[in-house]
Amino acid sequence: MNSNNSDIDNLIALLAKLPGLGPRSARRAVLHLIKKRSLLLSPLADAMFAVATTARECLICGNIGTADRCEICASEKRAQGQICVVEDVADLWAIERSGVFKGRYHVLGGSLSALDGVGPEELRIPQLADRVREEEITEVILALNATVDGQTTAHYIADQLEDMGVAVTSLAQGVPIGGELDYLDDGTISAALNARKSV
Amino acid sequence: MNSNNSDIDNLIALLAKLPGLGPRSARRAVLHLIKKRSLLLSPLADAMFAVATTARECLICGNIGTADRCEICASEKRAQGQICVVEDVADLWAIERSGVFKGRYHVLGGSLSALDGVGPEELRIPQLADRVREEEITEVILALNATVDGQTTAHYIADQLEDMGVAVTSLAQGVPIGGELDYLDDGTISAALNARKSV
Repeated sequence: MNSNNSDIDNLIALLAKLPGLGPRSARRAVLHLIKKRSLLLSPLADAMFAVATTARECLICGNIGTADRCEICASEKRAQGQICVVEDVADLWAIERSGVFKGRYHVLGGSLSALDGVGPEELRIPQLADRVREEEITEVILALNATVDGQTTAHYIADQLEDMGVAVTSLAQGVPIGGELDYLDDGTISAALNARKSV
Repeated sequence: MNSNNSDIDNLIALLAKLPGLGPRSARRAVLHLIKKRSLLLSPLADAMFAVATTARECLICGNIGTADRCEICASEKRAQGQICVVEDVADLWAIERSGVFKGRYHVLGGSLSALDGVGPEELRIPQLADRVREEEITEVILALNATVDGQTTAHYIADQLEDMGVAVTSLAQGVPIGGELDYLDDGTISAALNARKSV
């Protein structure tokens, strides 16, 4: 019971389930929404309805879009020879924001994890091998998280693609732009030292 | 541009306007919503639509409900003689959660502020005086924030109601339950000392 009103309480309870919001911030958000009804609440309801009815996974890469082929897979401007492999759609969006990569993607949907019982079949890894076989792929870029599970997954995929005549690369590791050495962990510093370049 | 998809980008942009969410957490929230489409996204769209069409301000007290008289003003279980004056609907909800107060409310919609140009007319203070005159009110409880603006507003209201034959009270000030003296500000400690009670 938050507001003595079942509609409003229901909205608060649902909003509180979003990551990053709890009961208190959900109550604040609902009051804000009601104050800005025509500017924010109604457009938000419409936008949620639109996404709920149209959003679907791309059958090729696993990205989220509104058609069976996502905007990136359907675009003729994207290079056909490169596939960038990511764990989640959020990672794909992050790389797109950088604006550097002009090829296409493959979303695994997670990383291999013995503890959580996630094997290759759960991860769209077989579909990746199919794409490398069927499309004219020259390079597979493994843009997986620099975690134990992410790197395990990267090694597994590199093994799977070994005899397919495709270059398998991974993101460079080192000091992040703007990073201060004093605040970096030992692993990053030793990786950056080992991969040092001549100036 | 977040996701290469206009529907999804629109939803992210709108969610990012909620208090407590920024662009990054809005992206996370949208991916979460799409994953839990039938459990969360569709119900949330429905709940927002319901609140957008039905929510309105109570004509008597200024609370938010779905009728011209809110659930509290319409309830016959609430004591008729007491009015608790609060700045915002969020404060009303907070007092309702405590479950202690059984009277009715009056929501000012803010506090007097010379800096922001908020005067008594903007604050439903005349409506409060009307209610005290027309309803059989015996006590007005000023539950305003313990800020400069809140206390200024409390003094102004107390002045306005002075000759109306109604008791005007305010919330007790002192050490919050569970509060440690070492972490309290000087103002709270001196207020608690001045209002000390015999044990």
